[in-house]
Amino acid sequence: MIKAGIVGGAGYAGVELLRILVGHPAVQLTAINSHAEVGLKVSDMFPSLRRRVELSFIPLDDDAFKSCDVVFFATPNGIAMQQAPALLAAGARVIDLAADFRIRDVAEWEKWYGMPHAAPELVEEAVYGLPEVNRAQIRGARVLANPGCYPTAVQLGFLPLIEAGIVECGHLVADAKSGVSGAGRRAEISNLYSEITDSFKAYGVGGHRHLPEIRQGLSRMAGGAQVGLTFVPHLIPMIRGIHATLYARLTRDIDARALQDLFESRFSGEAFVDVLPAGSHPETRSVRASNMCRIAAHRPQGGDTVVVLSVIDNLVKGAAGQAVQNMNIMFGEEETLGLDMIPVSP
Amino acid sequence: MIKAGIVGGAGYAGVELLRILVGHPAVQLTAINSHAEVGLKVSDMFPSLRRRVELSFIPLDDDAFKSCDVVFFATPNGIAMQQAPALLAAGARVIDLAADFRIRDVAEWEKWYGMPHAAPELVEEAVYGLPEVNRAQIRGARVLANPGCYPTAVQLGFLPLIEAGIVECGHLVADAKSGVSGAGRRAEISNLYSEITDSFKAYGVGGHRHLPEIRQGLSRMAGGAQVGLTFVPHLIPMIRGIHATLYARLTRDIDARALQDLFESRFSGEAFVDVLPAGSHPETRSVRASNMCRIAAHRPQGGDTVVVLSVIDNLVKGAAGQAVQNMNIMFGEEETLGLDMIPVSP
Amino acid sequence: MIKAGIVGGAGYAGVELLRILVGHPAVQLTAINSHAEVGLKVSDMFPSLRRRVELSFIPLDDDAFKSCDVVFFATPNGIAMQQAPALLAAGARVIDLAADFRIRDVAEWEKWYGMPHAAPELVEEAVYGLPEVNRAQIRGARVLANPGCYPTAVQLGFLPLIEAGIVECGHLVADAKSGVSGAGRRAEISNLYSEITDSFKAYGVGGHRHLPEIRQGLSRMAGGAQVGLTFVPHLIPMIRGIHATLYARLTRDIDARALQDLFESRFSGEAFVDVLPAGSHPETRSVRASNMCRIAAHRPQGGDTVVVLSVIDNLVKGAAGQAVQNMNIMFGEEETLGLDMIPVSP
Amino acid sequence: MIKAGIVGGAGYAGVELLRILVGHPAVQLTAINSHAEVGLKVSDMFPSLRRRVELSFIPLDDDAFKSCDVVFFATPNGIAMQQAPALLAAGARVIDLAADFRIRDVAEWEKWYGMPHAAPELVEEAVYGLPEVNRAQIRGARVLANPGCYPTAVQLGFLPLIEAGIVECGHLVADAKSGVSGAGRRAEISNLYSEITDSFKAYGVGGHRHLPEIRQGLSRMAGGAQVGLTFVPHLIPMIRGIHATLYARLTRDIDARALQDLFESRFSGEAFVDVLPAGSHPETRSVRASNMCRIAAHRPQGGDTVVVLSVIDNLVKGAAGQAVQNMNIMFGEEETLGLDMIPVSP
Repeated sequence: MIKAGIVGGAGYAGVELLRILVGHPAVQLTAINSHAEVGLKVSDMFPSLRRRVELSFIPLDDDAFKSCDVVFFATPNGIAMQQAPALLAAGARVIDLAADFRIRDVAEWEKWYGMPHAAPELVEEAVYGLPEVNRAQIRGARVLANPGCYPTAVQLGFLPLIEAGIVECGHLVADAKSGVSGAGRRAEISNLYSEITDSFKAYGVGGHRHLPEIRQGLSRMAGGAQVGLTFVPHLIPMIRGIHATLYARLTRDIDARALQDLFESRFSGEAFVDVLPAGSHPETRSVRASNMCRIAAHRPQGGDTVVVLSVIDNLVKGAAGQAVQNMNIMFGEEETLGLDMIPVSP
Repeated sequence: MIKAGIVGGAGYAGVELLRILVGHPAVQLTAINSHAEVGLKVSDMFPSLRRRVELSFIPLDDDAFKSCDVVFFATPNGIAMQQAPALLAAGARVIDLAADFRIRDVAEWEKWYGMPHAAPELVEEAVYGLPEVNRAQIRGARVLANPGCYPTAVQLGFLPLIEAGIVECGHLVADAKSGVSGAGRRAEISNLYSEITDSFKAYGVGGHRHLPEIRQGLSRMAGGAQVGLTFVPHLIPMIRGIHATLYARLTRDIDARALQDLFESRFSGEAFVDVLPAGSHPETRSVRASNMCRIAAHRPQGGDTVVVLSVIDNLVKGAAGQAVQNMNIMFGEEETLGLDMIPVSP
Repeated sequence: MIKAGIVGGAGYAGVELLRILVGHPAVQLTAINSHAEVGLKVSDMFPSLRRRVELSFIPLDDDAFKSCDVVFFATPNGIAMQQAPALLAAGARVIDLAADFRIRDVAEWEKWYGMPHAAPELVEEAVYGLPEVNRAQIRGARVLANPGCYPTAVQLGFLPLIEAGIVECGHLVADAKSGVSGAGRRAEISNLYSEITDSFKAYGVGGHRHLPEIRQGLSRMAGGAQVGLTFVPHLIPMIRGIHATLYARLTRDIDARALQDLFESRFSGEAFVDVLPAGSHPETRSVRASNMCRIAAHRPQGGDTVVVLSVIDNLVKGAAGQAVQNMNIMFGEEETLGLDMIPVSP
Repeated sequence: MIKAGIVGGAGYAGVELLRILVGHPAVQLTAINSHAEVGLKVSDMFPSLRRRVELSFIPLDDDAFKSCDVVFFATPNGIAMQQAPALLAAGARVIDLAADFRIRDVAEWEKWYGMPHAAPELVEEAVYGLPEVNRAQIRGARVLANPGCYPTAVQLGFLPLIEAGIVECGHLVADAKSGVSGAGRRAEISNLYSEITDSFKAYGVGGHRHLPEIRQGLSRMAGGAQVGLTFVPHLIPMIRGIHATLYARLTRDIDARALQDLFESRFSGEAFVDVLPAGSHPETRSVRASNMCRIAAHRPQGGDTVVVLSVIDNLVKGAAGQAVQNMNIMFGEEETLGLDMIPVSP
């Protein structure tokens, strides 16, 4: 059994990690922290976990974390980078669901996240955990940077096109839409029910923190070439789900059948990427509460612009599920172990 | 392995049965019907089941149903009663999620359901499948009448009070609220998104089909005495969940502690009924996508009226989950087998 | 023109007051305060008011309030009672949308609201502003206690029954449901989108602050007799609307026609109470964004329990609209002036 | 008074027309039709209109329509083109909220709408009713083609850029999102509450009927040049509102201030287009139930791609409100008459 701990277990990614790990046959959950809730029973905060989780929240410096095989950080940015060195020293591996280890250029990270990095040496060591791109390196990772939610949906959607070198990488557009749980469990006016419901808006058009992460990932796919990306996130009045609508201009002709084949062959063998039949429009609910990403590629009106639709559950493939997928790889387990939840529909 | 078939698999209870049975370790799903969709792949209708269900919808008279050990009917009322005799003759057992076998008084059934009953002899044989009341009889059932969604939430909430004989049974009030999936997957104006959202209403105040079913169940708990029940269902703008708010006048004094003990002891040992601590207010999302019923009992302001709050997921404990719970009992499996899904939250 | 000021204009009742008063032909809005937003343009906070409101938020002690003819308090409880004396001295009249002047028994008020009352002498003078009960006294009011949202829906629903003396007043049940805007524009976890959506719960079953207010009002209708009331509020995943489902046991027989007549005749002539045809189920959306209350009375199954369904928009007839209705009465305007908004549907 | 009739008054655009026209000081509503509801009182179908509309639905061939000054068609496509000639002959003017007269190229129209055009001679005469582009021609129109909802939001957003000739017109992208009321009040599975809620999807990526309409409008703005447009519509789980996110590549440099000025000066004087301050993100709720379009222009990261955000209420500026705005212009009334509704928020 893998002994697992969770730091930051009172947020939405945290409770989703709990849901998944509690049902994971190779995991024993041994420690859970929430700095604001120390002493509280987990199931008193989340009645959905009554009879399933008996743990209470403990302090971050509790020794229980040191005896873990793996510690997940479902914290705000800036926590994992402070705690990782001691945990690594104690023999635990670290999976960070926040952004601390995602950007290889530390100066760039510091610009976007507005704080000095506490463990730049670990940034170099850290492995970016997008298994469909990076599986081999993930196996040996001690520090795993779990991708952001938007970056997961956007990168998987662009992946076949960029690797195949058939689109203009200087002018990509990612119009992405997210459910509200992506904003976290924070008491802010802007996240209130009455502010969100029956409304829709873009945000962060001038610059969103996921932009450099996506750009870095796309650039890697492009063999290191610079990519130009316009990234516009939007807020959908729903709890879970991301829908990325991606636009790329073809640099050479490819017919509809070949386009479909390109996507299907790139993801054949991937347990968590499902390429839909040509002409499909994936709905976010088709992946709700599951670790699946569903993708469809279109070439509307036979024009020179390819449109890719990519959907995930932001809390699962976009956070907790992908983290567990990475854990499975890191610990030599079957990649799908504990992740066979069927999407909840309706 | 239990060979299982589903008739009416294209509705909401049907797809939820699919979600549960596909993950059930002792079940092999061998036949699925939807009269309007014969020939269609199940996963073409429900993309959430892609890679998990390879079956296509087949006609109701396909022999595959006859070789099933159990056939679930997730159909409109009036179908199971026509098909059950032949299936029973072929050796299959029948679990009806509709109302055909719920009311023992056939004349009463015909009045409320507006059609002649096609198999009155089976009504007598059929077992009402509320395991917390009826477990022993369920074991041997060939025809299982799976309770309605409202009746499940209401009966479980009143159960300890009525069995203990401490409330006035002539003037019970059940103010019940349901998510919209309870109305089924039917193309009707009244179920449209734009008709339901941001609105709330009662319906069927004059008389709802679940009234006689609840009254029959409560009367059984009361040792056969007549009960007087005012039952008012409401429609909540949400997909899943039932919240029953129950009012009963005490016939003798009982302090808060004893009231709590009454509920806890009645349901101790029940895997799918969770009595919350005194003073709690269960939320429907605490049971979302799970087979749990959560209950809290109150005596507001120390008055003579007890208020019970009872929540279930109408598609699980109120339909497909309870049906599988009954199947487990009927086939000698662990009652919780395949039903350990943790509620999805948020 | 009536010169009007608003204190607490950054909450949901405040912005609704703005929407109504800006369109009111006899009102000139001259002062608006929000203690946290002094200096901010109102339309920068509420873009819906761009081009319609040019005011900025000013401090509470700004002289502009003293020259108002009427000052509305859309503040938390406990503010109006502190400010009212000075405003009255300056010649302004006060309409409090909070609870400071609603309960005539000051000790009772202090128990439920947990603070000493700052102006008990004004409690006696204050007029409770439910026009359908109290119109004559409202005309001369200097201090107007605008009813709570639940109390408005519940009192109007019970009114004909209690005045007619045909129900048992010792065991009334009010099962009430409210949209989320009733909880105000406050940054609290429990009001977050992801906490509320796709869920339903009761709250305050042990005792809610609107209980004594409703009890006081019903008792007045009953000629001063004590009433016994079980009041259970619930939270609906929607922005606006209250639905009260009321249960009362008949003390003498009344047929369906007479019951309907009782309601219709009691409210004939009322501009803002609409009695629906017998058998109706009012939806909250039928009053959305309007000052209307719609009511239907039922006697299910011919039993001895009357069920009344009463719906309002909690921000309009339950708050800002009723406040303007009261202002119209106080200042001798047509009662419906500025309140002829047609409900927004869908 | 303008005598107005509505054909197709039982849909969402129809009931919104009713809401607006009932409150319009220069309009007398004299005739209303719904082919499926002849004889029914309008207020029996829409309780929100009780006490405000006394009319019943009448047949389409009722003489009442012939004596109207203007007849609005809020019908499915293909109705207005059949009825318009007779009404025009009788002296009425026609405003079609459907698509019959929007596309000047009749063959193109027939391709997209799948039927022969019944009145091609009127297509030539008809005026496209986007007042911000076309005000002068609207004044004299006998047949007014009211723009589609997506086309309104998209055209207004691109207008300043294309007229100024500063973007590459061959590769425009319009990523548009709509609330569900845009799909109409039709009993279809895909519009059910449980199908839409908590989900998000694109649709019609291969080709949507609004594509040729938008392309025609943009081309006109571009002085007749061909435009290349990728148009992807999406469905938002909310009732009302459209959010268009528009992408265009600059052909020459323009700094942020000049970009803002371009938009502000183009729409200065427009009552129903509100250009937000630089850096803003308009929310659809800021225009809910009003005739306003709010727009913000961005140039993210100083790159060569301009992003325009444009929001409207699809039932008002995208349908009924714009129709009444056009009527005001056609009949020489103040353009804003009867359209001063303040957006409902929250």
